Parts: sequence; structure tokens; C-alpha cells
Amino acid sequence: MKNFDINEDPHRRFNPLINEWVLVSPHRAKRPWQGQNETISTEELPKYDPTCYLCPGNVRANGMNNPQYESSFVFENDFAAMKQDEIIFEDDIKHTFFKAKPEQGISRVVCFSPRHDLTLPEMEIADIENIIKTWQKEYTDLGNIKYINHVQIFENKGSVMGCSNPHPHGQIWAQSSLPTQVEKTQNSLKSYFDKNQKTLLEDYVQAELKVGERIVIENDHFVALVPFWAIWPYETMIVSKRAVNKITNFTADESTAFAKILKQLTTKYDNLFNTSFPYSSGIHQSPTDGLIHPEWHFHMHFYPPLLRSATVKKFMVGYEMLGESQRDITPEKSAEILRQLSDVHYKSLVK
Amino acid sequence: MKNFDINEDPHRRFNPLINEWVLVSPHRAKRPWQGQNETISTEELPKYDPTCYLCPGNVRANGMNNPQYESSFVFENDFAAMKQDEIIFEDDIKHTFFKAKPEQGISRVVCFSPRHDLTLPEMEIADIENIIKTWQKEYTDLGNIKYINHVQIFENKGSVMGCSNPHPHGQIWAQSSLPTQVEKTQNSLKSYFDKNQKTLLEDYVQAELKVGERIVIENDHFVALVPFWAIWPYETMIVSKRAVNKITNFTADESTAFAKILKQLTTKYDNLFNTSFPYSSGIHQSPTDGLIHPEWHFHMHFYPPLLRSATVKKFMVGYEMLGESQRDITPEKSAEILRQLSDVHYKSLVK
Ligand SMILES: O=P(O)(O)O[C@H]1O[C@H](CO)[C@@H](O)[C@H](O)[C@H]1O
Ligand SMILES: O=P(O)(O)O[C@H]1O[C@H](CO)[C@@H](O)[C@H](O)[C@H]1O
Repeated sequence: MKNFDINEDPHRRFNPLINEWVLVSPHRAKRPWQGQNETISTEELPKYDPTCYLCPGNVRANGMNNPQYESSFVFENDFAAMKQDEIIFEDDIKHTFFKAKPEQGISRVVCFSPRHDLTLPEMEIADIENIIKTWQKEYTDLGNIKYINHVQIFENKGSVMGCSNPHPHGQIWAQSSLPTQVEKTQNSLKSYFDKNQKTLLEDYVQAELKVGERIVIENDHFVALVPFWAIWPYETMIVSKRAVNKITNFTADESTAFAKILKQLTTKYDNLFNTSFPYSSGIHQSPTDGLIHPEWHFHMHFYPPLLRSATVKKFMVGYEMLGESQRDITPEKSAEILRQLSDVHYKSLVK
Repeated sequence: MKNFDINEDPHRRFNPLINEWVLVSPHRAKRPWQGQNETISTEELPKYDPTCYLCPGNVRANGMNNPQYESSFVFENDFAAMKQDEIIFEDDIKHTFFKAKPEQGISRVVCFSPRHDLTLPEMEIADIENIIKTWQKEYTDLGNIKYINHVQIFENKGSVMGCSNPHPHGQIWAQSSLPTQVEKTQNSLKSYFDKNQKTLLEDYVQAELKVGERIVIENDHFVALVPFWAIWPYETMIVSKRAVNKITNFTADESTAFAKILKQLTTKYDNLFNTSFPYSSGIHQSPTDGLIHPEWHFHMHFYPPLLRSATVKKFMVGYEMLGESQRDITPEKSAEILRQLSDVHYKSLVK
């Protein structure tokens, strides 16, 4: 019998945002890897690709021409997962096992830059501020549509994350229902706020700043950290220090600070394995259902799949799908590694 | 405005086993795919591979020799995610944000066959019955250990599912806590049983048999179906018709019927894209916490990643991670495709 050492012993941690546990196996990163390696493209991308359907001036799948856009550019997804059609539906069919209801929504694609080869970490702060402005405008415009109650801003980066075009872009799926993960988060945030009259993340960020060990970057308005309950090896969350509940409530200083931390974090990510680091990221913020939502607190999740190198990822498979998420390196260790990485992009050094 | 057509219109479906929704976009399978293709090995495997650490007689990473086993063979995982050490822990540290507790557990590997090249669909029924016996024995032995309250039997098949060795094998992770997904399921099963004095799955299977459209295979004792709320394109579930709550309570007939449906289902899977079909599968059944658990009902989940072909999978990424699971083909369509596939393995035809 020995005393619990969180850095060495297998344990579970609790995620208060969604009320789920994660299994942490610190010693497990030592096992040898004989499994699948990802292929990564080391090909230098051109600034403009005539075959890319996101580059300025090119033709998209639906035959439409992209304008000669100069900063960011937004268009409706031609193969949207939801449609805008209003559907008549009899809600009284409340079957226990066959419960379904139509969902209305809009999907948009947000090109981050006219440049085919420029990812977030390589952009100027002003360019990133411009993307933030685009997100604000989309959140407002889509949120103002009567039936839209939630606006999900996200990015799939890298082919390993299902991204089919390297041209830097994100997506927005706006819809009438609160998606499952957002609803879970909202329930947790609400019950914390009702009890404490403060947002859960306001108190969490303060608690993290106090211990320091999971902080990756801090500036005047934002903190990037590896959550205590992170499931992906290098998962991070950018949280505002102030309890601001949506991106449209940022001050000008907050927008700049957010652009800076986005650039710094994604630069560290690229520097980790000297590769354009794949991830899915997305913003969680107040729903657009017309209610006030003082419990909501702006944050952005980064879920990167890589574990050991540019080609070896963590597989969330059998045990993880049937049992619970499991990680092989502690969040403290990951935060330390990310914290110590340079803010200067590796590509700018070799050029 | 049009009337809701579940086969055409985007909608959400409810999963009563874990109380979560899934977004279904029937029209979306039409979009062209320009993203990542998986590499598949078309290489014929030898019956015995001298470099395989799972083949009979070979040496494992820890220096131990495998016996010359003739049916299935079980050993302790050298790189287990949990350890058997008892850890002293002060449970009074109930921090809101930093909640962690040590977890005790055992991981085992179950080789399905001495043959390096023989997967489930290619085995004889008697061989599969033998695997079922092994699972029963492990469930009993592990479950009898005082601190083990849950035994998770699962298989990761294919390199795309993180499996690092093609030698047919599964795993068992046994532990002191109920894993997150199992706890969610147990809560749903329990509240249904308390209300109806019948298991949720007993009633669900009957409801499915009545409509028929999601049934893939039925025999005297088991049904393989695509759940109404399936998230993966070709996800299925094998459910016992009788409310049997664990594998050790199978009758002899049930064991044979289970072996048969396992062979048939995995054969159909291989025949879908003429490939050794990757998936993660696993059994959900009564915990081994010493309580009676009449609410539990034996079932086995199959989560296969492929969507369009042997090389194009479904990516559960940005929207799915941040919002909710999303599928591009209806469960009814998937069930129809699987149902119509032959029970004769494609390899046995070409040989
Ligand atoms: O133990 P294995 O088979 O090497 O590992 C595989 O299955 C485990 C359980 O689902 C996962 O945690 C690993 O990420 C995966 O690579
Ligand atoms: O719309 P895309 O980028 O082609 O598609 C990608 O992102 C979507 C949203 O996360 C996923 O549903 C798809 O599986 C993925 O391939």
C-alpha cells in the first residue's frame, strides 16, 4: 500500500463542465508503439491553388464563383448537415424508443485568408483580429434569425481531423436546438451560477492561476491552459479572465488579446512536433435563444489528436468508446511541455 | 412548409440508453469526398508470424514466452492502463475543480485463435463458442476479485481503430469504478426497470422486431440491429431476446446462438466493402459489484468507422466533438444494406 501520487498512479479525474470522468494512466506513455502511423504532408503549399475551391476567384462545387476576397470570406456550405426548410411535425408522437424531431439549421464556411498556405499561427495579429470580427458578425447575424438558438463556430484542421482542404478555413453550424455537449455544459454552468452567483469558469481560471502548473499562456484578458480533466494528450482551453458570455461582448482590448493568444497557442502547437499541428477547435458561448445567460463564460476548446510525434496519434477507441476517455500523459506534463515551447514559429526560423 | 419525412429531412434522434441526441442528415451522403483516405493492408497474412508477440510460442515485450496454445489464450497486458496496487487516498479532498481519485484495475489480452490470419467471421462456430467460454471465465474470475466492480470486454479491430497487431485478439479492462458510459447506461436501464418491471432492452427489441426495418439478423435467442439512435454509419448492437443480464447466465443454446450471430454479423461487415472490416466492439452487461442488477440486459456494441468504402471513414470531429454526434445515412438505410449482404464470407468465394 502506498500513498496516492497523482503524477504516477492511475486515477480518474472529474470534468465539472460535462459531469464526466476521465481515466488517467501516467505510466502508459512508456509502452512501445507498433500501430498505425499517420501520413503527413510536408509539401509546401502554393499561395494560390487554381484547383482549390476556397481560393479567391475560383469556382465552387455548386458552380458559384468566389469573389476576389482580401481578408476573410464566408459562404453557405453546399453540402450542409442541416437545412433551412421549416418542417411540419406532430410533437405528440412521443415514442419511448423512436423519438425523433426535425432540425432546422444553417452551415457556413469561413475562409480565414485569401492565402492558400497561411494557417493561424503564421498570420499577423491584425489578420486574426479580422477573423474574430467575422466570427462576431456571423454570431450576430445567425443568432438574430428567429429559429436559430445556437451558433457553433469550429475548425477541423488537418486531414487526420477530416479536413478535406488545406486552405485555412473553419465552419459554423447554426441550429434550432442546443447540441448535446453544449446542453451538458449549460446545465453545469447554470447550476454553479445559481449557487455561487459567479461563473464556474471565472472561479476555475482563478484556481488554475493560483496553482500555475497547467497554465500554458496568460495575458491580460485570457488564459490558455490544459484543463485538469483534459482527455486529449495536448488538449487546451482558452478562457477569458472576465466573465464575458459571448464573443460579441469582447472589448477592443479583449479582441486583440484573444488574437494574440490564438497565435501564440497555435504556434506552440506547430512547434511541438515541427508540423502543421492538426486539431478540432471550437467556441462555447451563450446560446442565441434570446435569454440573458449570465452563467455562460466564453471559452474555446482545442482537441488535437497527436500523442507521440507528428505521425502517432492517440486512438479513442474500444475502451474509450464503451467505457470512458483515457489519457496516457498527465495534463500537468503536457502543460509543462507546451509552456516551454517557443512562441516563434519553426518555419520562420528555417526560412 | 412540408411534412416531416424522416428518410429525407435533417433531424435529431434520442438515445434512451445514454440520454443523448444524435443529428441525422440523410441527404449528406451525397457530398463529394476529397479528404483523407485510409490505407488498408491487402497483404495476405501468414498462419504463423515469427515476429508476432501474440502467436503461440513467441516471446512478448516483457520477455515471457507464449505457450503453444490451441484455442484462445489470455495474458496480463504488459502496458496496462490501470494497476493492481492498492493506493491510500484521503477522500476528504473534495475540491470542486481538482477532483481526482486513484483507480485500481487489471488489463488482459485475449487471443482469439492461435492462427495469426483468422478473424472472427472466418472461424468455425465451435471456435467462437470457445471465445465466449473464455469471456465467461474472465468475467467470473475478474468479477470475483473483491475490488473489481466492472469488467469491460472489448475488441479494437484494424489499424484505423488503433489496433497494433493483426493477430485476432480482444482486451479486457476490469476496474473498481463503473466507467462513464456504463454508468450512464446503468442509470437509464435502472429508471426504466423501476418504472416498468421489465428491462428497457427487452421492450426495445420487441418494438424493433415489430417494425422490422432496422433488423439485420435474427435468430432464436439474439437480434443484431442498427439502433434507431446509432451514431456510426454501420453501427450495430447484438441484443439477447431474453432479459439475461450477463454472459455467464447464457444457456448452452444461447451461447451457440450468440456465436452464430457473431459470425454472421462480422461476415456481413467484411462483405460490405470486401475488406477485413475495422471496428471497436464491446459487451455491456451487469457490473460485478455484488448486487443483483435485474435492470441490466446483455448487449454488444459494434462501432465501425467506415462510411463510403474500405478507405473512406466517417470523421467524428469538430461539430461532433463540440456539438453532438452526426450521421450521414439513416440507420434504416444502413440496416437494409447490411441485411441484404450475403452470410458467406467473400474470401471463401474467391479461394
Ligand atoms: O492497448 P492497445 O490495444 O495497444 O491500445 C489501443 O486500445 C486502447 C483501449 O481502447 C486505447 O487506449 C489505445 O489508444 C489504443 O491504441
Ligand atoms: O464539412 P466537412 O468539413 O467536409 O466535414 C468534416 O467536418 C464535419 C463537422 O465536424 C464532419 O461531420 C465530417 O465528418 C468531417 O469530414
